[in-house]
Order: sequence, then structure tokens, then C-alpha cells
Amino acid sequence: MMTLQYNPAERGVADLVVACVQMEPHVGSKHDNVAQCIRHIEAAAHRGASLVVLPELANSGYVFNDRDEAFALAEPLPEGETAQLLAETTQRLGIHVVMGIAERAGKQLYNSAILTGPAGHIGVYRKLHLWNNEHRFFEPGDRGVPVFDTPLGRIAIAICYDGWFPETYRLAATQGADIVCVPTNWVPMPAQPEDRPAMATTLTMAAAHSNGVVIACANRIGMERGQPFVGQSLIVGGNGWPVAGPASVDREEILYAAIDLTRTRSERTLNAFNHVLSDRRADVYDPMLGTGWPTSRT
Amino acid sequence: MMTLQYNPAERGVADLVVACVQMEPHVGSKHDNVAQCIRHIEAAAHRGASLVVLPELANSGYVFNDRDEAFALAEPLPEGETAQLLAETTQRLGIHVVMGIAERAGKQLYNSAILTGPAGHIGVYRKLHLWNNEHRFFEPGDRGVPVFDTPLGRIAIAICYDGWFPETYRLAATQGADIVCVPTNWVPMPAQPEDRPAMATTLTMAAAHSNGVVIACANRIGMERGQPFVGQSLIVGGNGWPVAGPASVDREEILYAAIDLTRTRSERTLNAFNHVLSDRRADVYDPMLGTGWPTSRT
Repeated sequence: MMTLQYNPAERGVADLVVACVQMEPHVGSKHDNVAQCIRHIEAAAHRGASLVVLPELANSGYVFNDRDEAFALAEPLPEGETAQLLAETTQRLGIHVVMGIAERAGKQLYNSAILTGPAGHIGVYRKLHLWNNEHRFFEPGDRGVPVFDTPLGRIAIAICYDGWFPETYRLAATQGADIVCVPTNWVPMPAQPEDRPAMATTLTMAAAHSNGVVIACANRIGMERGQPFVGQSLIVGGNGWPVAGPASVDREEILYAAIDLTRTRSERTLNAFNHVLSDRRADVYDPMLGTGWPTSRT
Repeated sequence: MMTLQYNPAERGVADLVVACVQMEPHVGSKHDNVAQCIRHIEAAAHRGASLVVLPELANSGYVFNDRDEAFALAEPLPEGETAQLLAETTQRLGIHVVMGIAERAGKQLYNSAILTGPAGHIGVYRKLHLWNNEHRFFEPGDRGVPVFDTPLGRIAIAICYDGWFPETYRLAATQGADIVCVPTNWVPMPAQPEDRPAMATTLTMAAAHSNGVVIACANRIGMERGQPFVGQSLIVGGNGWPVAGPASVDREEILYAAIDLTRTRSERTLNAFNHVLSDRRADVYDPMLGTGWPTSRT
């Protein structure tokens, strides 16, 4: 599905080229990390990508020693230096980028991702589900699952452990998202067999299939202060099958996929009777998932 | 994980042997289908199984010509002949069985599954999400996702297309289910690559992992009135990895797995901070999944 020859004049909903950048940020080296991100974005744009996804916390790195270190690396969004450099880049290249950035909002920190486009800043997503000791540094996200209307299609964002919660993708899809961009720092999970792809692959495929949405995941690689990351970035089509990746476990690389979002939307209709979203039994779920107990109608 | 030597005197929550029967019912041949089911149940019990799962509509077959045929094959539950024979069998063998049965309730039909144990009838689940032209024959389920307390553990049931909806498993898990039994008649899905396991494998693994529940799926095989079925029955542990199967595409076989449900429950705790169910952001989901729109807290 990699598209090398790509004519921007023909860009439309029907032929979106998505790129996922698998790279290795280094905690604390923000200047170098951002420079590296911009080089990758330029490379992807040069090869025809109109939407580029970068990893979680791509500018700061992931394993902070303490909250002071996290605080010093975080920036207000979209006013901070990283977001400004990113907006300059997307304006110059005429593309959209989703990038994980440590956000500072007053005295609060969020594990956030920013969406920036040809006209500059579009929006921010704040990770809802914090993993492990992220709780020491970050507040849980407080802006739900926003879906951003763009000329490319409707874009939602999830970050890493958010993907363990099917609700995340459901909330994106039921609001009309066509594609969910996932900046991530996937780590090894308990009981992972060595000869199988990461469980994240399975979770992503299931979510794409169940919701009829494209999901584009950009993971980091490398080892940071004793914490390994598992690579295996991937792009999954709305039918649940990978269209690019999983990438390697440990190499810097960029995945590309040409996606027809019009087709993705139509493929949610499975046959004359079934549609993956319309078939939801909201009449059953709503009384149950709120309280955790069923309301029987008989 | 197959356990051939198994001492029923040691049966407890910690060593549940689950069996999934992959077989081929023939539409209309109810007497023969039920006899075949009972033979398989006896074989599984003989090999130590204390919980046996049979396919969807295992007594009637699946592809009805018209509603009259479906109506004639359906039975009231638990009063009908199939359920009575099943209860006799589980009482005699001292085991639990989940079996798909076409249910007649007055003039309504349901694609149901019955749970029967050593003391006879326990409960009925009615399929919530109807696939394709099942809409011509069956009413959509109207009893939510019940979870049944048994000496083996807390058992929920889902049927086939129910598994396409992450809400089904969430509703089971948030009500405390340890294991979800899935009588199914999986058919080929659009865009299925020939060299990969059925998408149902991915959906089942993702649901087990996201919810920390065991999922035991018994599919049928064969071709019925032009409709092929894909076999590949499987049993997935609460960490999301298969413990038995996927089975073959086209052979009659019984899968066995020894499951420690105590361990399953404890594995929902991923680390000092994370638990797959407690980490749900109900504060975010509840206002959103009901209406489809977010309620921002900022």
C-alpha cells in the first residue's frame, strides 16, 4: 500500500496517504528530538504523505526521573516552542501532523497530542487512560475524545493505553471519526509470547474492524532508563486488516498507506441488514454501562 | 493446556476444565443434532471437562428457508425437549453446558443459548445483535447480558455477531463475569485474507485482554444451503492469548483448556497503578456513549 508517486493536486478524501514515524526520542533532549521529528515529517511529506503521525511524548521522551523533570520539558499548547515549530512545518509543507507532546497547563501536566495542519493549530487531545507511573506526572485527560473536521476527513486521537479501552475507539467512531491517529509508547505486556506480534496489534485490528475506522499507530523504539519499547507501528484499514506494518521491533522507519476514506465509510455496511455502528444496541448498553447493572425489559 | 487426567474431586474455581465442541449440525435434523451434541458432551465430560460449550443453534441448524421452518424447529426454554434432554445429561454427568438453541416464546423466536448444570436449568441468553437475514426469523434479544453465578465461577454468554460489539464483553465483565461462553456460527467476513485466522480470533483475543475474562468459542463447521462456516473454535485466556485453538476450519473436534479463574481475576491488575476494568473512564464514557457527543469538563 506504499505510495511513492503521489500528486498533491489530486489529494482528496479518496486517496489520503498516511505516514507513521517510528523513531527513538531521548528523554530530556528536546531540541534534538524536535529536530529529528521535523526531519521525519519532511521525509514523509516528500514521499507524498498528507497526514503524518509521530509517537507519544515525541519531543520530551517518556521515562521522567521526577515531576520536576517532566514539568521542565512540558510546554503550553499551542503556544509552546514545539507546537510553534510544528505549525511552521505543517504550514510550509501543506500537510497535517499528529504528534505526542508533554503539555503544561498552569501547574497541571497532561500527556497530550496536538493536531496541526496547513493553516496551523487545529486541536489538542489529552490522554484519558494513564499507564503505570505516568500517574506521578500527568493528570488524566479531561477533554473526552474530540473529533476534528479536516479537509482530509474526520480525525480523532488516542494515545497508547487508551487503546486498551474499546470505549475510546467507540467514542471516536460514534462521533463520525474516519481515522484515529495513535501516538504511542507501547511497552512489553505481561504474558506476551515472543513469537507473536504485540497485543497492541490485536487490539488495534479489533477496534478498526468493530468501528469501521482506520487506525494509524506510531510507536517509539529503543530503551530509556531501563524501559524497553516494542516498535511494531502499524496502520490498519477500516476492515481490521493491516495495510502497513507491523513495523520492526527496533528500527527507525516510516510506514506509508494510501487510504480511501470514502470506501472505509461504505464498508461499515456489511450486508443488506448490518452496519457496524448502527447495529449497536444502545437501548441495552446505555442503562447498563453507566451503572454496571442490566435493566431487563422482560 | 489440554488436561486429560482430571480429578473431579479436586474441581474448584482454580482448575476449571473448559471444552468447546466444534461440530456440524444439519438444518432440520433436530433429533440427530441433539443426539450428536449429547455424544460430544459425554466425550468431553469423560475427558474431565466441567464446562462444555456447543455451537449456536446446535439443535436446529442455522440456514432456515423461511420463518415457518424456524418456528417449527424452535422450542420454549427451558420446557422444550432439547433443554429437557440437556438437563438430564448435565445432571447425570455433573457438569455445566452452554448450548445454542432456537427459542420460541409465544409467537416470538429468539436466537438463544441455554446454561444448564448439575442441578438442571440455570438461565437463558437471547442474542442481542442479529446477523444478516436472521432478522427475518428472530427478535433481537431483550434480556441484556446476564451473568450467572455458578460453583465454577461467574458465566456470561454471547452469540456470534455479539462479539463484534465490544460492549457485549464489557457488560459481562463489569458485572463480574469470569468467563464468557460463545456458541457461534461464524461465517466468512468481507476482506478476510486466506492466510490469516478469522477476524473473530482477533476480536475474541482483544475482548479477553481488554476485560480480563476467559472467552470460550464453539463454532460449527460445514456448508448449509450454500452458507459456509469457518470453524476455528478457540479458547482465550484472560490475558488475551489463546490457550486452545484456533481449531481447524473444517474438522469436527473438541478443544480443551484448564483455566485457573482465580489467576484470571488477579491478572486484571497489570501493575501498581493499572487494572483493566478499574481504569475505565466512566466519567467520560457515560455522558458520551449515551448521546454520541462529548461533555467537556474544561
